[in-house]
Amino acid sequence: MTDKTFRYELHIRLHDTDAAGRLFFAHLFRHAQDALEAFMEHIGYPIDAMLRDGEILLPLTHAEADYRRPMRHGDRIRVEVRVEDLRRRSFAIGYRFLNEAGEEMATARTIHVLVTDEIHVGESLPEALRAGLAGHVMAARTQPTE
Amino acid sequence: MTDKTFRYELHIRLHDTDAAGRLFFAHLFRHAQDALEAFMEHIGYPIDAMLRDGEILLPLTHAEADYRRPMRHGDRIRVEVRVEDLRRRSFAIGYRFLNEAGEEMATARTIHVLVTDEIHVGESLPEALRAGLAGHVMAARTQPTE
Amino acid sequence: MTDKTFRYELHIRLHDTDAAGRLFFAHLFRHAQDALEAFMEHIGYPIDAMLRDGEILLPLTHAEADYRRPMRHGDRIRVEVRVEDLRRRSFAIGYRFLNEAGEEMATARTIHVLVTDEIHVGESLPEALRAGLAGHVMAARTQPTE
Amino acid sequence: MTDKTFRYELHIRLHDTDAAGRLFFAHLFRHAQDALEAFMEHIGYPIDAMLRDGEILLPLTHAEADYRRPMRHGDRIRVEVRVEDLRRRSFAIGYRFLNEAGEEMATARTIHVLVTDEIHVGESLPEALRAGLAGHVMAARTQPTE
Repeated sequence: MTDKTFRYELHIRLHDTDAAGRLFFAHLFRHAQDALEAFMEHIGYPIDAMLRDGEILLPLTHAEADYRRPMRHGDRIRVEVRVEDLRRRSFAIGYRFLNEAGEEMATARTIHVLVTDEIHVGESLPEALRAGLAGHVMAARTQPTE
Repeated sequence: MTDKTFRYELHIRLHDTDAAGRLFFAHLFRHAQDALEAFMEHIGYPIDAMLRDGEILLPLTHAEADYRRPMRHGDRIRVEVRVEDLRRRSFAIGYRFLNEAGEEMATARTIHVLVTDEIHVGESLPEALRAGLAGHVMAARTQPTE
Repeated sequence: MTDKTFRYELHIRLHDTDAAGRLFFAHLFRHAQDALEAFMEHIGYPIDAMLRDGEILLPLTHAEADYRRPMRHGDRIRVEVRVEDLRRRSFAIGYRFLNEAGEEMATARTIHVLVTDEIHVGESLPEALRAGLAGHVMAARTQPTE
Repeated sequence: MTDKTFRYELHIRLHDTDAAGRLFFAHLFRHAQDALEAFMEHIGYPIDAMLRDGEILLPLTHAEADYRRPMRHGDRIRVEVRVEDLRRRSFAIGYRFLNEAGEEMATARTIHVLVTDEIHVGESLPEALRAGLAGHVMAARTQPTE
């Protein structure tokens, strides 16, 4: 773990769980989004401002998660956010969800692609965004989802 | 029950429940919104078209619910939707959530107010909307929430 | 505002908003639950432990909210949590949602009742819980929801 | 499309969308779960009964989705559910989300693994469940996510 890793903390709340007593899987993605928004603000590209200004659109085109250990109501979870891939007009964000003992509870990955409108992909990411992301690029861990 | 009552059906799904094994209270409001959207489409005022056209804005200013019996994963619920109050520039929608035996599991109420922008209330509801709502006005049941 | 008021902070995230560009009303209750869980932990009665031990059950029987100003993606919101009513076997929690300028964006209220099982109400709240709540009782503000 | 395909319908509601005006990505998984519950009931293995009986546990270990076209408030979506993989102690469910014109808006995939408790995988799926799933096995589409 180097300082390239951005960290975000959360609690598993009652509404995160289901009648099976554990985190309902789709809610992991809500927490990933929360971590992503905090990360994007950290690198100077808050998503709310991007959407309001409408200059660049970065829709999510892929999302995936692997669930390794059950997360339960009251658990304190630390999310590690990294840039796993950075291309000319797209990037991939990786998320590791760890419990207080440092055990990996789940991992997730989202892919975002620059578009100029809803049909066409854009030319290339703005330089300032690329620079912000580049500071957090890490070799992906040993490809757990492929 | 007269034919003024609009009906909507739903299942309680795993993600509606929490670790206590019952419907998480806030999700009742999501289902109320689903029932409201079906109702508004039924009277010829689909909410999605209203929002897209932007002609009238009807933000929700109040929401409340009373929870009488626990709803569990797998329950089939019927929602009865009625107009409980219809004023010049606002209206109240009432929702009764019944199980298959007809028992009242919960009730809810939402209030919607016409605005012309985000600060000013509007003059009066469009006549066609008023007419649609008027067909479903019923005396409120014996005031369960006050 | 005295020190009886417990405070909780949150951001309005993309998934909190809807196509109308503002907080979807039901999500306010999810944030109220987050604030309540933080409050209950603060007074020594974490809800996750209560549910796991199963000693006392405190189901929510009523929830309501008033929406005064639109909350938008990126807004930082402070929630003030207080005990608005404390009875032998029930209590009411009040929530004020304020923006960074201190303006009241919304208020909410939840009522919780002690039950021994799913049908019967219990005798009285445990003394330690009562004491914890009592430290945060405040006269309700001038009846914002009626 | 043969009759091996199970179909499920849904509307995109206001709470499914976000301030960008389109389906918030994580909500696709909530709809996938709704479709899965309807499918499992169709083949005689309702998930709520499975969880209540506790005989077999089938936690979700992987979820993924690809987003091809934006879904908006008011869209009517048809979900096609198929068994994409069926092994001794696990299976994969595939979901295609189509609009009214039959265009593919998104696809998703979930993997479920038999466990006997929270640590150990089980021996093999019950025969009746295997038979129910086997009736809906289809060659996966041309592997869009790998």
